[in-house]
Amino acid sequence: MTRWPLPAPMAAALQQARMAADAGEVPIGAVIVKDGQIIAAAHNAPRAQCDPTAHAEILAIRAAAAALGNERLSNCELWVTLEPCPMCAGAIAHARIARLYYAASDPKGGAVEHGAQVFDHPQCLHAPQVYAGMGEAKAAALLRDFFQARR
Amino acid sequence: MTRWPLPAPMAAALQQARMAADAGEVPIGAVIVKDGQIIAAAHNAPRAQCDPTAHAEILAIRAAAAALGNERLSNCELWVTLEPCPMCAGAIAHARIARLYYAASDPKGGAVEHGAQVFDHPQCLHAPQVYAGMGEAKAAALLRDFFQARR
Repeated sequence: MTRWPLPAPMAAALQQARMAADAGEVPIGAVIVKDGQIIAAAHNAPRAQCDPTAHAEILAIRAAAAALGNERLSNCELWVTLEPCPMCAGAIAHARIARLYYAASDPKGGAVEHGAQVFDHPQCLHAPQVYAGMGEAKAAALLRDFFQARR
Repeated sequence: MTRWPLPAPMAAALQQARMAADAGEVPIGAVIVKDGQIIAAAHNAPRAQCDPTAHAEILAIRAAAAALGNERLSNCELWVTLEPCPMCAGAIAHARIARLYYAASDPKGGAVEHGAQVFDHPQCLHAPQVYAGMGEAKAAALLRDFFQARR
């Protein structure tokens, strides 16, 4: 059987998630892509950075905006291993991310297809195109293994 | 007529908002209070910092967590001049802020009593106590004057 390979940005986001787990952080990773190139990559790091906002998406968005010298990432894609929470979905809207790709859904903490559904309110000034599910089994396995090892 | 004075933290948040306006940023300010002391103060600065996440609340939360060496601000209050957006409401939940005081409501971008209503979903792991309206006329006037001057 041939399995279709994961797109390179999702593979890179999963690699970031593995780096998070190695660092004792909840394994979630994200990359920002512009013109087909990865311009920022980050993993969840609230413990190491003593920063409750240091989710993978926030760190990747901040790094990309700094790299581009622009607070708006208008033609950029965000690839992340888990459905973004309200904070990260809000940041994606503020950053004007064009396309959002996430691997696993998150019924407990997600805010795209669950809960606050941040992009679905008229107050949301910008909603990205959303593509979900690529790499979801790998992303979910990383999280499951991480939390099982901590029990 | 005697007007009841604003609590010092809201006066400090309004001062931060004025500093934002002076810097050409949308005038919103925030402070974090722990044990009656202001431990962090910040204003909206996405342009200056090239960072779409650099809202007053996010910057104040990051500064307070760094100052305390803890990603959780469990016994802290956040005072802010405008109803938080989804990103900032999410950050407030992640930071475990105990009490949220905001001045003006924001029907367009707010996510506490409007839109995504982040704290009202079962997915929200922590909701602060919320107190709204103190200083709302001053906070709203700062925003109105700022946007009128830019037209």
